[in-house]
Amino acid sequence: MIHTGCTVWFTGLPSSGKSTLARLLCEHLTDRGLPAAVLDGDELRQWLTKDLPFTKEGRDENIRRITCVAELLTRVGAFALVAAISPYAEARARARQKLRRFVEVHVDCPVAICCRRDPKGLYARARQGEIAHFTGISDPYEPPMNPEIRVRTDRLAPRQCLDLILDKLVELQYIPDDHAHCTPRTRIAALRHDEPV
Amino acid sequence: MIHTGCTVWFTGLPSSGKSTLARLLCEHLTDRGLPAAVLDGDELRQWLTKDLPFTKEGRDENIRRITCVAELLTRVGAFALVAAISPYAEARARARQKLRRFVEVHVDCPVAICCRRDPKGLYARARQGEIAHFTGISDPYEPPMNPEIRVRTDRLAPRQCLDLILDKLVELQYIPDDHAHCTPRTRIAALRHDEPV
Repeated sequence: MIHTGCTVWFTGLPSSGKSTLARLLCEHLTDRGLPAAVLDGDELRQWLTKDLPFTKEGRDENIRRITCVAELLTRVGAFALVAAISPYAEARARARQKLRRFVEVHVDCPVAICCRRDPKGLYARARQGEIAHFTGISDPYEPPMNPEIRVRTDRLAPRQCLDLILDKLVELQYIPDDHAHCTPRTRIAALRHDEPV
Repeated sequence: MIHTGCTVWFTGLPSSGKSTLARLLCEHLTDRGLPAAVLDGDELRQWLTKDLPFTKEGRDENIRRITCVAELLTRVGAFALVAAISPYAEARARARQKLRRFVEVHVDCPVAICCRRDPKGLYARARQGEIAHFTGISDPYEPPMNPEIRVRTDRLAPRQCLDLILDKLVELQYIPDDHAHCTPRTRIAALRHDEPV
């Protein structure tokens, strides 16, 4: 049987938690026999998009290539889990239009918290002017107006964010109900309201 | 259940029949519920690799990107069916090493026959010097020494070539036996010896 997958598109500032959530979701799905792969923007810069600059044009082409690979993955029934800053609303809209079964997850975290996390020291370098075109510092980020899900990674733990995402995937009928959840259902309603944990 | 796919890599001169065979195989597999996608070199030049020249370096990078996409497809259990001239043995060897479950199909057809087919008129233009770096005319093609399969598309019909490929995929246990064949088995042995049809 060929499954019917979809694209889950994680967008957000650097260090907001996109890759962490994409990997958690990937693990959750594959553990349950659903084929899934993470398309991580940073990793793809090593091979698929390594020639591209961080200008608007470079970023648009970056999203275009990732979109095409996601399309191939969903064509074979897999879940394409994209973790890419994807700062421009228009580029994300084009991805949505091309991919159709598309779940936009706004990985929402204040820039001050992302700066504090800064696991790769990139914010620090950007603030010292060592990195040009750094989203959130010297390059714009256009937050999604109507994402399917918004998760506040400064307020919720990764597994709680995962629960909200799984809930939405069930609601959209992209995964069966028995493939959710990590957290008891009684907690889910509270999480939906971004209750601090 | 996540299937276990593999990469079937069709290499050969322009107009040798790579895309035709890849599409036939794709149709055959998907009709039987096996997830498969064609990675067609010409089509990929429209988006994934459109920035690349037809120099050796450009071609190597082309194969590198295609290999990575094939890797993603097989990671989710699909069959990646690559149709790309891929003229350099070393680049194909790198693809084989990276992908492991790798079936190299040499789509073998004399250049004179490919020239005669020439559905896009490219050989004609290459011979008039209008296209530089044209494989078989002004650029080298290194035929595989030990491909898993060699099909002579000037001697066999596409469906007969498909039978040989399916036979090999069964033999390698990449597809179950009941997923083969189009042509009665009594004919297969004869086809293996490139008997003209």
